Amino acid sequence: MIRIALICICLLFTAESFSQKVNKEDSITLRKIFDTALLNGQSYNWLDHLSNNIGGRLSGSIQAEKAVNYTKEELDKLGLDKVWLQPVMVPKWTRGRAEYAYIETAPGITSIANVCALGGSVSTPAAGLKAEVVEVQGIEDLEKLGRDKIEGKIVFFNRPMQANLISTFSSYGGCVDQRYSGAMEAAKYGAVGVVVRSMNLRMDDLPHTGSMTYGDTPASKRIPACAISTNDAEYLSTALKLKPDLNFYFKQNCKVYPDVQSYNVIGEITGSQYPNKYIIVGGHLDSWDLGDGSHDDGAGCVQSMEVLRLFKEINYRPRHTIRVVLFMNEENGLRGGRKYAEEAKLKQEEHIFALESDAGGFTPRGFSFDTDEANFQQVLSWKPLFKPYLIHYFEKGGSGADIGPLKDEKIVLAGLRPDSQRYFDHHHAANDTFDAVNKRELELGGATMTSLIYLFDKYGTKTSLTEVKN
Amino acid sequence: MIRIALICICLLFTAESFSQKVNKEDSITLRKIFDTALLNGQSYNWLDHLSNNIGGRLSGSIQAEKAVNYTKEELDKLGLDKVWLQPVMVPKWTRGRAEYAYIETAPGITSIANVCALGGSVSTPAAGLKAEVVEVQGIEDLEKLGRDKIEGKIVFFNRPMQANLISTFSSYGGCVDQRYSGAMEAAKYGAVGVVVRSMNLRMDDLPHTGSMTYGDTPASKRIPACAISTNDAEYLSTALKLKPDLNFYFKQNCKVYPDVQSYNVIGEITGSQYPNKYIIVGGHLDSWDLGDGSHDDGAGCVQSMEVLRLFKEINYRPRHTIRVVLFMNEENGLRGGRKYAEEAKLKQEEHIFALESDAGGFTPRGFSFDTDEANFQQVLSWKPLFKPYLIHYFEKGGSGADIGPLKDEKIVLAGLRPDSQRYFDHHHAANDTFDAVNKRELELGGATMTSLIYLFDKYGTKTSLTEVKN
Repeated sequence: MIRIALICICLLFTAESFSQKVNKEDSITLRKIFDTALLNGQSYNWLDHLSNNIGGRLSGSIQAEKAVNYTKEELDKLGLDKVWLQPVMVPKWTRGRAEYAYIETAPGITSIANVCALGGSVSTPAAGLKAEVVEVQGIEDLEKLGRDKIEGKIVFFNRPMQANLISTFSSYGGCVDQRYSGAMEAAKYGAVGVVVRSMNLRMDDLPHTGSMTYGDTPASKRIPACAISTNDAEYLSTALKLKPDLNFYFKQNCKVYPDVQSYNVIGEITGSQYPNKYIIVGGHLDSWDLGDGSHDDGAGCVQSMEVLRLFKEINYRPRHTIRVVLFMNEENGLRGGRKYAEEAKLKQEEHIFALESDAGGFTPRGFSFDTDEANFQQVLSWKPLFKPYLIHYFEKGGSGADIGPLKDEKIVLAGLRPDSQRYFDHHHAANDTFDAVNKRELELGGATMTSLIYLFDKYGTKTSLTEVKN
Repeated sequence: MIRIALICICLLFTAESFSQKVNKEDSITLRKIFDTALLNGQSYNWLDHLSNNIGGRLSGSIQAEKAVNYTKEELDKLGLDKVWLQPVMVPKWTRGRAEYAYIETAPGITSIANVCALGGSVSTPAAGLKAEVVEVQGIEDLEKLGRDKIEGKIVFFNRPMQANLISTFSSYGGCVDQRYSGAMEAAKYGAVGVVVRSMNLRMDDLPHTGSMTYGDTPASKRIPACAISTNDAEYLSTALKLKPDLNFYFKQNCKVYPDVQSYNVIGEITGSQYPNKYIIVGGHLDSWDLGDGSHDDGAGCVQSMEVLRLFKEINYRPRHTIRVVLFMNEENGLRGGRKYAEEAKLKQEEHIFALESDAGGFTPRGFSFDTDEANFQQVLSWKPLFKPYLIHYFEKGGSGADIGPLKDEKIVLAGLRPDSQRYFDHHHAANDTFDAVNKRELELGGATMTSLIYLFDKYGTKTSLTEVKN
């Protein structure tokens, strides 16, 4: 009898924890946050300036410097408790004159190919580089082919992004090794250059740049690497079938300079109960240089600024110290993210929660959490609060590159997960521009982030030592 | 003791029905459907032709006729069991020469306003119409103002769409009476014309057309009505504050012709078990004339065609007869929808489920169901199957205009619900064009629809009299 009663209590308890109860005060606060963002959001205006008046913000560029000054000024206007610049040395790589490439199927018979240098690539010789091409479907093909078939040639990495995955970030993850390590690996077999199919699910003429590494390859053995548009990748592949000994020519004029001084931009509202416990929200202020970096990651920056502005706007005084951090140099170095974490450790600042938005300014669908089960269960208990806003995705997974270095056993890390279908149409390409951002979608993202931070601020995390008093 | 045991069983049963069990065969079929749509979907190619080679398809236009022929030919190619045209007479209204309008704040001091005639509006006098303006926030303001303040004037309906609603269709629903009935109502107070703020959440220069009615207003008392862009609505409102007696001028050259012959386009796969029980899926083939009708509702048409193509492609032989219906004349008459229902009734065809896609070709989020609790609970039991595809929205609500006339006590009606944030940026305006459609988002919609129809075909509805044998 007692056993049965216990089972009953257990079952009831389970039913209770499953019932989608919503705290009324929280529900009202979320409604205020979304109303304010949709009726009077600032993300879009800030992004307009960042994208159209400043433009692409490659680390070490004058635009990156302008963006630091602009966002600091805007944070100053919000009446936060503290706004400052955190110095960080960043790499400076420049693209130089526009790249030029062609496919030569017979002497003098050429067709232009749309390419761009990968970020960090060395230049070609001044007269450009011309060589035969060997097409591969990935790094693992290099060993199969061997030095014989690769030496003196340009390696063409042509494995496309897998189109049947629902998360386009998964498709990206399955391909990006070609771009990141392709040149380093191909050089080991004597290749003279590398052409990589753009990380783009769509067929179009735009090459997509992105970071790459030479690892510990000595300077004399580094080979130039470029991305080619998906249309031209298909064309090159077809042409190779008809004419395996065709030549590919490309010329690029990149240059690496000594590191330069730059900054993370930081603003904070001091916590009323736990001024020495930190919740941070951020995106990265640098971008690639081909577009204006609206989705990657102007969107994440302005949404993160908006979190603090919305708290002010709805008169919410946080219990913990809430910081916005606009990280410098995510794209080609992660120096900002590393610097922030290093200093936080040095100052023994306890960070309980960090949220990054770096997946585009599209309609928010939810969050991905890098945390333990107890914290994740707490997050799931908040899910019903988000239902009216069609925010439904709460899963375990990665968070964001810039906040990664903060990882320890206690901190909860999370990444905003917007709809990903269109992201790689624009990612690192010339069409990552302001016109590709919809105001409502962008502002909804900021409201969604603000809501989650409000909840973490109010209820704390399960791993933070201090009880939050409500 | 027995009571406690019963409670336990009850609780266990509840827990069981709540557990998100997924039928493995269904899970595999949905994966096949999504894979095929994403790797080899046809919706985007069909829409390319419909939008770029044919264009806007106003009822009674040559483009509408071309669209009927094109889609019939394409359905013929799919090897369906039957493809045919269902004759229906449709209204023919033409816009005529481009509209022209200006705001005159003093004699000779004018600024151009972007307007377009509302669909079905009468023409202005040949020389145009110029009058003072009275601004209102809705139809209910007319009675408050009274004939004194309205007679001889142009009524300017300027209530904006409410921006803080998450569903933009709700915002639309809260405003569209101004467009639909504004002219009819204002004429009762002696107004000479009507200008309506475009149904658009964004500030831009594009006027958005749409249907309107004169009800039983006699021809001699019908006043012309146009839509004005949101930017110009704001400008006009501001100008009126500074100069309440300014004049507004507009000129439009619309014309109504006698009804013309047109068609619903229908194709079907005959059911293997229940050939006389019908499941239909459709969109509307007509569109407004300003853009090319890609989102409204070219998208819905090609997605509906794709449902039958995907069944063929994955070798699924449906138990019920599955029909695609491309309805004619949703925008300004609903003649196609009415005709289809009328004939179905006449032939005593039992329709068990109807699904419409008429909310744009954006990332699908789920469905809205017009049905009873038993059928809705069955739908909810399928929800876990859709989780891998991020399809999460299953709610009771409306379905689609064209399938509405089929409503009876037994049929389940549903509407696809894509992400709605960008829809009204394009709806009924010159920028409802192919370039605003993303291939992946569009194809995902078709796959989502196919999956739901597969489940209804396999399990039947709770209101259909026949048991489905599995």
